[in-house]
Order: sequence, then structure tokens, then C-alpha cells
Amino acid sequence: MTIPAPRQRKNLEHRERVGLLMVHTGDGKGKSTAAFGMAIRAAGHGMRVVIVQFIKGSRDCGELHALRRFPEITLHRAGEGFTWEVRDDDRQAALARWGMERAAEALAAGVDLLILDEVHIVLDKGFYDTDALLALLAARPDGIHVCCTGRHAPQALIDAADLVTEMRCIRHPWQQKIRAQRGIEF
Amino acid sequence: MTIPAPRQRKNLEHRERVGLLMVHTGDGKGKSTAAFGMAIRAAGHGMRVVIVQFIKGSRDCGELHALRRFPEITLHRAGEGFTWEVRDDDRQAALARWGMERAAEALAAGVDLLILDEVHIVLDKGFYDTDALLALLAARPDGIHVCCTGRHAPQALIDAADLVTEMRCIRHPWQQKIRAQRGIEF
Repeated sequence: MTIPAPRQRKNLEHRERVGLLMVHTGDGKGKSTAAFGMAIRAAGHGMRVVIVQFIKGSRDCGELHALRRFPEITLHRAGEGFTWEVRDDDRQAALARWGMERAAEALAAGVDLLILDEVHIVLDKGFYDTDALLALLAARPDGIHVCCTGRHAPQALIDAADLVTEMRCIRHPWQQKIRAQRGIEF
Repeated sequence: MTIPAPRQRKNLEHRERVGLLMVHTGDGKGKSTAAFGMAIRAAGHGMRVVIVQFIKGSRDCGELHALRRFPEITLHRAGEGFTWEVRDDDRQAALARWGMERAAEALAAGVDLLILDEVHIVLDKGFYDTDALLALLAARPDGIHVCCTGRHAPQALIDAADLVTEMRCIRHPWQQKIRAQRGIEF
């Protein structure tokens, strides 16, 4: 397995803009939510953002309503439900490839921030090849930030990342049999 | 020290809406960002949100520009800089009290989601009493969600919370001497 080496970053003191590769992983809440918050923040600065949302299906999510208010943000939905809901791996893999094509387009177009939401599940389940994604990201133009989210981030992606945050679940309402709350969980 | 007991939650199977007390803590990124993302998601559902932003100063943040697009979200700024920037504890404590008054008003007004951003620092530094905050939250009307963020969440708040997520820093660009990036870190 060949892992592209992290890009060289010389004279960083003199460069304001460095395209970061960020990873949000772990079993806790907030991985996708923090990425969406980052998208909103970047849009607030006038930056152009592309979000490719893997895995997650067509459920009516509050964030989708909210994102419509941001012309700076483009959302591509490349999923149709969590893997425990949708068992057709061929469809999931086809949607994953379609989503990666949208990601490649966004990088080629020089977007400011690319968010690959739940992409770790895509990689973990083998719907897309981790090395192929790493090669795509390593070849991206300078200055493009990328944020990948989801449980089970592959070690190779963690190794390549500039920023890795693990969201750890210390306590979850499910443990108290409280249902998922509108506006909070979805 | 008297800690209010968690509110009784009987027959949860029959209640759709339960006001959750959520805690984002840890040394990693994403604590505030996930809370802001939650605010945006809730606003997308038409819910009313109040954010009290403690500690953080008047720095020009991308999320503040973004929040202006959401009439559902009210932001109260109750800080003037991180504690290592501002050393006047009396001013910080006065601002903390002012912020808690805004929080109490929001709860009394029956807001859907109250975010107390960086409140853990306020409590940890002794600018406001943890028991007083816990009493305020325990007495809130049913169904109001509250999200508290910041490093060093007091154990009593963790014990009272329904959902606790620790954002753990696995790797940070600072370690590679990369500057804070506009749109990503602020």
C-alpha cells in the first residue's frame, strides 16, 4: 500500500493560507455538526464551500434547510441511508463514486473548503479506495481546506491529516432511552 | 455543595420532546463549532435559538457574519477576550453575570435552544458559580435544549448532563507551526 507523503510545507511563517486536511472521527456526536458549522463560518467569510454528503439518506435534516440560505455553499448528496438501513452495496459504491467525482470537480474548480461528510464510512466499508482518495487530496491545488468526517477514519487518512479530532461519547441520551431530538440530532 | 438532581423523566416513550442538557468539552477543536452547527440546524427547523458567547472577544469571526442571516438566532456577546488576553477578572465576572442574565431571560421566554458558549471557562475560572448555573438550568421550562461548551467542564455539570462529548485533540496544525486559518479556526 503506497501512501502519498504529506505535501512539503516550507517557510510556513511567510504563508498565510495553508490548505489543511482535517479529520473528525470517533463515536461521539459533533463530527458532522462541527463540519457544517465550519462551512457556515467559511461562508461567513465569503469563502466557497462544497459539501459532499455520503451515506446519509434523504431524511429531512434541519441543516439542509439552513444551507439553502448560503449561496456560497453547494451540497451534493451522495448517499441514500446508513449502511444498516440500505444493504445494497453496489448502489452505495456507485453513489460513493459519484460523490468522489463531485469532490474532484470541486478541487479542480479551486473551492476554498471541501467537506466529505461521512466519508470514513465509505472507506471503512470498502465502497471507495482509501489510497485513491489520498491521491486525489494530495494532488489538490494549494490552499484548499478539506474536512473528512465519520466513525472509523482509516489510519492512512489520520496519518496524512494536519488536524485530527476525536469526538468521544462520554454520555448519550440513548443510554437513558431518550429519543433523537429534532433540531439536535437531525 | 448541593447539586440539583437531574429532573425526573418518566414515560419517555410517550414524549417526543425532551429538553437535553448537552456538554461539549475537551482540548480538541469543534466544541463551539458543533454548537454553532446545532444552532443553524435548529434554525433550519424554525426553532428559536439564543447563543450567549462568553469569554471570546470582539474578534471578527466568520460565524458572526453567518448568524446574521438567521433571524431565529439571537447572539449575546458576554466576553471580551480569552483569559490569557484579558487579565481584569472583575470585568470578566461582570460580563459573565450579564451573560447569565441573558441566559435566564431566554429560558424564561421559552426559547427552543440555549447555547452557553465557553461557559466552562467562566465556571472554571470562578467568574460564575457552577451551582447557581445548575439551579438555573434545573428550573428551566420543559423541552428547552441547552448546550454548554468549553474546556474543563465542571464535574457537577457533566454529572447533570444528558449528553457529554469530549473533543480530543489527536493532532493540531499548531504542532507543525501552521498559523490559524481564516474560515477554519475563526
